[in-house]
Amino acid sequence: MENRMKSFFEPASVAAIGASHKKTKVGNVVFHNLLMNKERGIFKGEIYPVNPKYTEVLGIKCYPSLKEIQKDVEMIVIAVPAEAVPNVMEDAGEAGVKAAIIISSGFNEVGNKKLEDDVVRIGLRSGIRIIGPNCMGIYNPYSGIDTLFLPEVKMLSSGREVVATARPFPGSIVLISQSGAFGAAALDYMAGHGMGVRAFVSLGNRCDVEEHELLSYFAKDKRTKVILLYIEGINKGREFFESAKGITKVKPIVALKAGRTWAGAKAAASHTAALSGVDQIYGAVFKQCGIVRAMDVEELFDMGRAINLQLPSPSNKTAILTNGGGPGVVATDACEESGLSIVKLSESITNKFDELKARGELIPIMVNSNPVDLTALATSDMYARALKILLDDKDIDGLLVITLPQTPSILDDVIEKVADVAKGQNKPVVACVMGGTEMAEEFRVRFEKSGIPSYSMPGRAAKALYSLMEYGKYLRKAYKRDK
Amino acid sequence: MENRMKSFFEPASVAAIGASHKKTKVGNVVFHNLLMNKERGIFKGEIYPVNPKYTEVLGIKCYPSLKEIQKDVEMIVIAVPAEAVPNVMEDAGEAGVKAAIIISSGFNEVGNKKLEDDVVRIGLRSGIRIIGPNCMGIYNPYSGIDTLFLPEVKMLSSGREVVATARPFPGSIVLISQSGAFGAAALDYMAGHGMGVRAFVSLGNRCDVEEHELLSYFAKDKRTKVILLYIEGINKGREFFESAKGITKVKPIVALKAGRTWAGAKAAASHTAALSGVDQIYGAVFKQCGIVRAMDVEELFDMGRAINLQLPSPSNKTAILTNGGGPGVVATDACEESGLSIVKLSESITNKFDELKARGELIPIMVNSNPVDLTALATSDMYARALKILLDDKDIDGLLVITLPQTPSILDDVIEKVADVAKGQNKPVVACVMGGTEMAEEFRVRFEKSGIPSYSMPGRAAKALYSLMEYGKYLRKAYKRDK
Repeated sequence: MENRMKSFFEPASVAAIGASHKKTKVGNVVFHNLLMNKERGIFKGEIYPVNPKYTEVLGIKCYPSLKEIQKDVEMIVIAVPAEAVPNVMEDAGEAGVKAAIIISSGFNEVGNKKLEDDVVRIGLRSGIRIIGPNCMGIYNPYSGIDTLFLPEVKMLSSGREVVATARPFPGSIVLISQSGAFGAAALDYMAGHGMGVRAFVSLGNRCDVEEHELLSYFAKDKRTKVILLYIEGINKGREFFESAKGITKVKPIVALKAGRTWAGAKAAASHTAALSGVDQIYGAVFKQCGIVRAMDVEELFDMGRAINLQLPSPSNKTAILTNGGGPGVVATDACEESGLSIVKLSESITNKFDELKARGELIPIMVNSNPVDLTALATSDMYARALKILLDDKDIDGLLVITLPQTPSILDDVIEKVADVAKGQNKPVVACVMGGTEMAEEFRVRFEKSGIPSYSMPGRAAKALYSLMEYGKYLRKAYKRDK
Repeated sequence: MENRMKSFFEPASVAAIGASHKKTKVGNVVFHNLLMNKERGIFKGEIYPVNPKYTEVLGIKCYPSLKEIQKDVEMIVIAVPAEAVPNVMEDAGEAGVKAAIIISSGFNEVGNKKLEDDVVRIGLRSGIRIIGPNCMGIYNPYSGIDTLFLPEVKMLSSGREVVATARPFPGSIVLISQSGAFGAAALDYMAGHGMGVRAFVSLGNRCDVEEHELLSYFAKDKRTKVILLYIEGINKGREFFESAKGITKVKPIVALKAGRTWAGAKAAASHTAALSGVDQIYGAVFKQCGIVRAMDVEELFDMGRAINLQLPSPSNKTAILTNGGGPGVVATDACEESGLSIVKLSESITNKFDELKARGELIPIMVNSNPVDLTALATSDMYARALKILLDDKDIDGLLVITLPQTPSILDDVIEKVADVAKGQNKPVVACVMGGTEMAEEFRVRFEKSGIPSYSMPGRAAKALYSLMEYGKYLRKAYKRDK
């Protein structure tokens, strides 16, 4: 099975069906992307444009049909009108193609059930696996497969050219989305927030390949650290459940299930004809198979980033370290409301704090309680000292570190100092940096680069830390059950 | 009473007690800010540095004490050690000072109750109103009063100078905060997100001036459109309630009450010694006096921006307009879960859509249901047409417009087209633009400048729209009650 999915993500050869000269055509964008990636040396296989109208496309010899290529073609990307897709699939069967991404729309989603059934039948008969139809396909920054037909840059009315659908840099996050539009926006978000992507898959109508096969594929993929799912409905519940249950023991999955409300489910039905089903059932299934559930888009990414960078937490026992009282109070509320517990500091900790105060290494007016408020006079070294004491304690399993960059005595070296202390421990640390201008942005980006997920709001940091705890709780149970 | 508050925000003369040459001193930053604003022509009154150590500070004649000035001093800003504050206050009484901002800390918040009581007694006897102690004071971009002692720029370890505590530009949002650190981070956030500020007040220990007096002052202020509160606890419940109840009929108030959980309340107690009280009571009080309640920091600003730019909604009947199916489903969930209702479209609307489809002015495959998905082929004109039809309908009272800038056919003129249609109506419109790179950022900023609050996530847009509905519901009830 893995090999079949591999044909989508790392094909030795690709044909772009419907490749075109015309810049407005999907077939142009797709072939252009592949060609660029080949020229840059990212895509290492063969590419063939296929279109009976042309003898060459973008300077490359174009074939009237798949049959004429006369060489192995492992994967095809189809961007031709829906009615022409069955013929292409028949040709592909004869040419021994292993995998097809059907970008074309005009199938089930507009009521053309028969046409989609025909395509599925040909695929089954010829042994061709299908992603789509009505999808954006795949973005794999490692192999150079990029079938996204959205322009990377666009022109504003002022004449200025801006990035419109950025491609995120290579990383370890997989995103599998039933919605193409959601996927496009998500990629743009991840690019803008420095989240590296292992692969993106837009599934569309899911006439053949569904989530569970992709989950199995990425579970065994060394580059993948976390899998994010955008789901409107699952077709094969049993397969999904079994596959997810096995995978979450090795790789974390975070899922956003849309269509939770009655109105949302109705909207999903008219969107991808997906049956959203009863939301409680999804909730229960996710819980049972260890999928961390995000309740909105921001949470999906916030949790995804945390799980990508940090270890799951063995318990909900949490401490907060801050240089501002108010944000500490807000973070305390957010932690407690998420399901984390802001623990009472042990005597061992407060004794150590008192020692450092006596030595002038912590501020004397600092209060010995959780949240630990280093006060506005906190320096980077004080952060490192207090964090070490807290992380060393056996009764604390997770840390939310708030660094307000606005106070005079805090400098940006606090980032590396916090990250250094955190690295020596097997306990998750997340950061919150409030503020919207340069210094705050710099802090957040640098924390992230140092391996500490960072958030602009205490509530978001708390939810992210909670997801590490929830996943850790599941892992503990799952491994106990296995023994 | 108003005049007394006016002495803080628009004093004819200010003395900076503890003004200093030394850049690390609070007294330096405060006097420097005032002097800069006077030189720029923003602060139009007189300023006097007071410090027995100097004969001049930053080139301005310095006075050994208030008495020596021999001219009217309306307001003083005190940045001297706590023990010296009572003497300063005695002098101020003799000099006829009306208002004092006490920046100095070292009072109640560290257990020095007697010292704070002394200061209060002098204030009462001499008729001096006090903000603080242990506060950051005031930022009023209109009059140039800026007592924030946080550096506007800071140096990174790389040697690069960056904005650290930006001052937001003049606008119509008032922020009153019990926490200075929260306030500093909030100002930075507002500056970064283009939110214009009418005034910011950091209240600190609140030994004298409390929220209700400030609320009354800003209620009558023409520049104020919305008041945001960060509260850990209210001392004078009755006064707060009465004042807020009267004001919300004229000016909206959005409040974040921190210390909601038991652990959070405990943290608040050790922070500003505020009694957080039972959270349910705050909830009930806020509801009764028409205060819109934010549950986290992001919501406070998201709701604040919406209420600042848009009208309250007469009902929860909502429509969603989108060019992406998935984000439409997510937004539907978020609206319904917030308390908005995604209504069934009337026949009158669907008939109008069908007419436009027949004329080729809307996409034929567009589905006639709510959320209204214009599909990825949507153009700016299609947005304008569909929005007009929806806003014209008597059964729709609020619009959430999602514009994904990633699709090829959407251009940035959609912003002005949507804003133009929205302006002709008395119904709130909020926008959601998902994505994290240039085009998405450009869309969000330009929407905001066109008067449409914009959000990067559907859930945040939904909550913001909900706050307009909640406030509208209160207003309807309140005015009915008054008749």
